[in-house]
Amino acid sequence: MQWYARSMFTPGAAIEAARRYRTDHAAHILRDYAGFLSIPNVTGDVAALERNATAIVDAFTERGAPMSVTQLDGVAPIITGRLPAVEATRTLGVYVHYDGQPVDSDAWLSGPFEPVLRTAKIEQDGHTIPFPDAGGNVDPDARIYARGASDDKAPFAAILGAVDALDTAGIERHTELVFLFEGEEEAGSTHLREYMQLIGDDLHVDLWLICDGPVHPTGRPQVVFGVRGYCGFELTVYGPERELHSGHFGNWVPNPAHDLARVLATCKDDSGNVLIDGFYDSTRPVDDADRSAIADLPPVEEQYRQDLGFGGHEPPDGTYIEQLLRPTFNIRGIHAANTGAGARNVIPSQATVSVDIRLAAGNDPATMLELVADHIRALGYIVLDREPTAKERRTHRHLARFLPDVGYPASRTPVDHPAANVIAAAADAAGDGGVVRLPTFGGSVPLHHFSEVLDAPVVILPIANYDNNQHAANENLRVGNLWYGIDLWAALLAGEA
Amino acid sequence: MQWYARSMFTPGAAIEAARRYRTDHAAHILRDYAGFLSIPNVTGDVAALERNATAIVDAFTERGAPMSVTQLDGVAPIITGRLPAVEATRTLGVYVHYDGQPVDSDAWLSGPFEPVLRTAKIEQDGHTIPFPDAGGNVDPDARIYARGASDDKAPFAAILGAVDALDTAGIERHTELVFLFEGEEEAGSTHLREYMQLIGDDLHVDLWLICDGPVHPTGRPQVVFGVRGYCGFELTVYGPERELHSGHFGNWVPNPAHDLARVLATCKDDSGNVLIDGFYDSTRPVDDADRSAIADLPPVEEQYRQDLGFGGHEPPDGTYIEQLLRPTFNIRGIHAANTGAGARNVIPSQATVSVDIRLAAGNDPATMLELVADHIRALGYIVLDREPTAKERRTHRHLARFLPDVGYPASRTPVDHPAANVIAAAADAAGDGGVVRLPTFGGSVPLHHFSEVLDAPVVILPIANYDNNQHAANENLRVGNLWYGIDLWAALLAGEA
Repeated sequence: MQWYARSMFTPGAAIEAARRYRTDHAAHILRDYAGFLSIPNVTGDVAALERNATAIVDAFTERGAPMSVTQLDGVAPIITGRLPAVEATRTLGVYVHYDGQPVDSDAWLSGPFEPVLRTAKIEQDGHTIPFPDAGGNVDPDARIYARGASDDKAPFAAILGAVDALDTAGIERHTELVFLFEGEEEAGSTHLREYMQLIGDDLHVDLWLICDGPVHPTGRPQVVFGVRGYCGFELTVYGPERELHSGHFGNWVPNPAHDLARVLATCKDDSGNVLIDGFYDSTRPVDDADRSAIADLPPVEEQYRQDLGFGGHEPPDGTYIEQLLRPTFNIRGIHAANTGAGARNVIPSQATVSVDIRLAAGNDPATMLELVADHIRALGYIVLDREPTAKERRTHRHLARFLPDVGYPASRTPVDHPAANVIAAAADAAGDGGVVRLPTFGGSVPLHHFSEVLDAPVVILPIANYDNNQHAANENLRVGNLWYGIDLWAALLAGEA
Repeated sequence: MQWYARSMFTPGAAIEAARRYRTDHAAHILRDYAGFLSIPNVTGDVAALERNATAIVDAFTERGAPMSVTQLDGVAPIITGRLPAVEATRTLGVYVHYDGQPVDSDAWLSGPFEPVLRTAKIEQDGHTIPFPDAGGNVDPDARIYARGASDDKAPFAAILGAVDALDTAGIERHTELVFLFEGEEEAGSTHLREYMQLIGDDLHVDLWLICDGPVHPTGRPQVVFGVRGYCGFELTVYGPERELHSGHFGNWVPNPAHDLARVLATCKDDSGNVLIDGFYDSTRPVDDADRSAIADLPPVEEQYRQDLGFGGHEPPDGTYIEQLLRPTFNIRGIHAANTGAGARNVIPSQATVSVDIRLAAGNDPATMLELVADHIRALGYIVLDREPTAKERRTHRHLARFLPDVGYPASRTPVDHPAANVIAAAADAAGDGGVVRLPTFGGSVPLHHFSEVLDAPVVILPIANYDNNQHAANENLRVGNLWYGIDLWAALLAGEA
């Protein structure tokens, strides 16, 4: 088809129509979106996710898109569909996920599924205001707080708004969309590949757009050419069979929390270097095109430090983007017995750490996990895939349970791929400050399935603000970023061949 | 007074009377004790502790001991009293604490304040049986499960049983007891000294008996000449101001859990040696009398390993008792974000460890804590006594909050002190296998107040089984150890000058 080779993009009229529409109908768009966000969507809660799927299907069906729901037993459904266009000369694939991260943190200032509008972000003293009434508007710096507001329900609101804007203005769509909406991304997309294999025959497109993640920290629009892969593990080390009195047995009976601290200290140094043998060996080297894109990236380091509140980055030298092009070793949680008011004078019986590893291009997930297990063995541990037996606990000083979570590899489309030109031009026109071309995101999305099963190139087209508290408490979407999404999608839908 | 220099102890008749009594009245003794254990006694719960105090006062008042309750505002009351004797030629001080550790563990197989009787310990498949009816008896290996069953309500049941046994047999008491019952021991005995200073004029005794802790692991009776001191701290290190997405920021924004692991790894090595500068310098050396008592101690190392379920002790060489004579560094809990099913892909915002330090004779608590703080500073941390400010978080890579808990020093009575001879002889006669003289317990009890404020020598006279799950879930008392306690106290109360 090679439409991108034949076209230049002139998005002016569509973007103007979108801006007019979302100015006139801000109240309707925001209240509609708040209604969607009020449907709980914690990953794994299949019943709740089915309610989200119904809402999504209804919204697109109303706008003339035939939709279809496929569901494996006990798994959140996958939604496919096709939004037709007049004399369509290109077909874009649109991937969005409608599940969200758990909401167990007690740091939420409002219910994760009771969306509220704030005048600004909490850290800038944003206070709650009512959603506007018909005809009213809100400052683009206002934020909608709810789980999923940015990750990843925002693209639904943007596409629906864009379709309505073009309809209202009487502008035809010349781009056909093929939808693939997943409900299991935050649980590792366990069944995405199986779903793709079931329904892939209906999913031929020219280019997949992965609609997820944040725009550039500067607020500039962004197109991203890759993602990191993911794997992880939970490691438990063992002390006495039950918690023991620390006075009678402290420093005689081994303390598993201290054992675990020593293991972890050997895994990564204070400068952020992972010390596990071979950990960096398989990483694909950065090429000249990458280096050229990297050289154009705005610096983010100082803004990150101020916005995120930390006093110095792990690698004393180097840049943020360099970190994204190598694998990570991140402790996402550690636990043994109690701290604070509940602390008791005991030797804990076991200590557990949960680690996620973000993979760079070239890293094989299973191999990376085996390097970690080898490292733990080399420290003198017997590494089990289960709880140790009573006899093992009495026989070995160093016992570990290692539970690998083999995720998926990284994926990177060449930054000089021609298909991205038109997409980048639309983003450039819809947003402020000029589009940023990022070689890879830090986050993980199962892009590798798209190239492996659906055989099409992939780029990521985010709309959320970068300071959205994704995965944490008080997740939010900046209203201005929703407006950008509507403008962007209006441009993409209207764009002629 | 020096009664111990003039007396030889002949406990035969009293012990026989006690054995007869507790055989005939086992049902009454056990049901009465279960009733007492069913009164919740978690340390800090003043209202519940007041109910315990009332029960204790009633029980001793009924037996002819004038009792008195003193209470500081918002603090569990201290109970004093005096059990008279016929032509008393000696006065023993009796210290017991009636508060217990928290009960938040979900490992309890029965309610911590719903006492149950089991045929044996849980680990030996002990199953629940009803408390016996009048005239019934139970195997001495049966266990009573409840918080406080061993630590430290057992001495109340033992003394009350002994008083009743002698009364029933018509044997006169020739030993006067002075009681000091505390309700704040498990919270660090914060007000014990103040209480002693308020009421110390009524507390002149020849020798204080601290009734707490377990007998020797072999089951042999035990007299203990010292305790370790206690101090501790909670240390929090800081990452980003809020939890961050580990994909976007992992290995760029510092991970406080990994920082904390590295700090802890520098504090103690895998062989149990504390690596903090000066940590062992102030410890009082072991003398010849200690060495002689130590040489007589039965070996416990292999039994501990089998009973407690661990595969090798921290110091590869050396004995258990050697560890008790040097200070410890024990992680009692560590926490950052979540593990298990609740784990999220985040960089935690902070990581906290709670540490207790058991002090040997010679260690000053405040000085030991300062050594730890110095160690953390030497690693490059700015050590605060509060949360860091937003500005500090943006300025310093390594920030720590160090909250010291200055407890109290160790205390050790010389193992050749003559006052202990009679006590040891009674324990020897009441128990099986010969009395063990232990230079120090591993546990901490505020003995130093007794010598400093009340000006009398102190020994510890435990009755609980050593495998009592003290401080943990499923705390229990072996019935045979309660019987030993009754026999022992009958001997002590009856013993002539």
